[in-house]
Amino acid sequence: MSQVISGCDVLTKELKILYAPIVSELEQSESILRRELRSEHHLVDEMIRYGCLLGGKRLRPALLLLSAKAIGQTTSEHLILAAVVEIIHTATLIHDDVLDKAQLRRHLETSNARWDNQASVLLGDYLFTHAFFLASTLDSTFACSTIGKATNTVCEGELRQVRSCNNFEMDEVEYLDIIDAKTAALCACACRLGAHFAGASEECVDLCARYGRNLGIAFQIIDDLLDVTGNESTAGKSLGTDLDQNKPTLPLIHVLSHLPQQRRVQVLEDVNSGADGREILAPLLDRFDTYQYVRDKARWYADQAIHQINGMADNEASQVLQQLPNFVLHRAG
Amino acid sequence: MSQVISGCDVLTKELKILYAPIVSELEQSESILRRELRSEHHLVDEMIRYGCLLGGKRLRPALLLLSAKAIGQTTSEHLILAAVVEIIHTATLIHDDVLDKAQLRRHLETSNARWDNQASVLLGDYLFTHAFFLASTLDSTFACSTIGKATNTVCEGELRQVRSCNNFEMDEVEYLDIIDAKTAALCACACRLGAHFAGASEECVDLCARYGRNLGIAFQIIDDLLDVTGNESTAGKSLGTDLDQNKPTLPLIHVLSHLPQQRRVQVLEDVNSGADGREILAPLLDRFDTYQYVRDKARWYADQAIHQINGMADNEASQVLQQLPNFVLHRAG
Repeated sequence: MSQVISGCDVLTKELKILYAPIVSELEQSESILRRELRSEHHLVDEMIRYGCLLGGKRLRPALLLLSAKAIGQTTSEHLILAAVVEIIHTATLIHDDVLDKAQLRRHLETSNARWDNQASVLLGDYLFTHAFFLASTLDSTFACSTIGKATNTVCEGELRQVRSCNNFEMDEVEYLDIIDAKTAALCACACRLGAHFAGASEECVDLCARYGRNLGIAFQIIDDLLDVTGNESTAGKSLGTDLDQNKPTLPLIHVLSHLPQQRRVQVLEDVNSGADGREILAPLLDRFDTYQYVRDKARWYADQAIHQINGMADNEASQVLQQLPNFVLHRAG
Repeated sequence: MSQVISGCDVLTKELKILYAPIVSELEQSESILRRELRSEHHLVDEMIRYGCLLGGKRLRPALLLLSAKAIGQTTSEHLILAAVVEIIHTATLIHDDVLDKAQLRRHLETSNARWDNQASVLLGDYLFTHAFFLASTLDSTFACSTIGKATNTVCEGELRQVRSCNNFEMDEVEYLDIIDAKTAALCACACRLGAHFAGASEECVDLCARYGRNLGIAFQIIDDLLDVTGNESTAGKSLGTDLDQNKPTLPLIHVLSHLPQQRRVQVLEDVNSGADGREILAPLLDRFDTYQYVRDKARWYADQAIHQINGMADNEASQVLQQLPNFVLHRAG
């Protein structure tokens, strides 16, 4: 279990241990990703290689490969699709960083900080379209269709969120619906593809997708909590961007729901005053026990995820799927 | 020939006449496009419906349908794919407008002018991903693969162009290579899909694709000429954006190639001084006969396009394919 995923130097020690049952597959998929993301044009090549470094915890490829291995064998199709979902995720992160004017990701300059918004928008487009091309190299249209639909849902969720900036009337239900689209859809897609291409029954594929969806919601709730309460150097990325962008997320929604109208207006004015919104919010998070409330909400979705795969055969990969929701709840970055 | 394409109220009278052999198919494809681009979420729906209006001359769907009809029958697959290529083209236009900070397109406010850059980036992403999903509803992966590859080439071309801003050492060869990627690849893709799904031989499919590619290069050369010399109210969009963005295009490359080093620097300084670059360039375009040079270059590619399809069976659709390059050369907007 102590094997190191050498190609994935982006991973924490804890994740390397969790991903141990799929270490070889994750490395192979990483090789596909790095081999695919090349260009003969130096200025493009430089950007897409750097873009590879901006990916995340390899959660989506890991979900895909673990779902496959929990059910049966991983195949060459899984390796390609694991690269595809990571490339798509990276594309969304690069566009997110443009939208959030973020300067830092994974302890590295964001693409928009290193180059500019123009090149970063096109880099994201390049990655999106390359991922679709790569998916189309498989024999059936199932992958293209599943990925196309999920990615479209992700974009719709992001669009809803951006257009809801400054809408502090947003309630928890709408918030959850948006993160279900913008984050959980691609996690569900990864699990669906993993299970489908391992030959799982339709019912089992659906359970895996539901696992991924609930895990994705828990993940995003914690992500939004970290944006308000986390430590920037641990997280390795700019924090407080949701408050800066007037994006209502669960911590703020919960605090506002406890305040009378006049006080709500005052708090929002203070947060928007240009001062550090995280500092202003901190005593209110304490006062209304928001930190605990948000963590409990994430815990509920994590439990739902585990519940979906209770009937799954017991093996090393399915055990990791059972443990992943806990990792998601307790991560610090 | 006087039939009106009611769904395509975006078309000029001249284009309506040219598109007459495919009027019914173009309308059906337009219906698919409008039916597909809906969302149950009001704020998203509002944007994607408006996005539909920002499309262009329906050149790419027309190329696809005309190629099909020149060879055989149009099928339901052609109608879907015609919508797909137009949605992709619209996505690239919306991102282009963000990059160019353009305010006007087709006599309408651009998406970034009406909303903002953030929402417009996501609207483009939404359209890209929806197009891929729609392509995946076909039985084979041929469409996904052809579209994925072409769209990736388009993005690579755009990325090369953006990263070449301020590089006034760029020569004509590199300029042509970039527009071959950023514009001609999707035109070639449209013709390839039209011919392939009409059952053409591989050789014939390749000739059609080469027709589209050469037509696309001619189209972009004229587009870049219009950006420098055109009339904004006829074109219905912001002009002079290439000069504003320090993007070297053929008119400027040609002028600079005639100037000694010191004078080149002076001209570039003047163009970048914040004054109207088009006005500064006008006397130089006259002096070096640049207007004629650029038109001759476009004419060469238009002739190449016609040459590819000389052996095609003579019918109404193939006649239009023969005429389209002339339209491309003589358009004013």
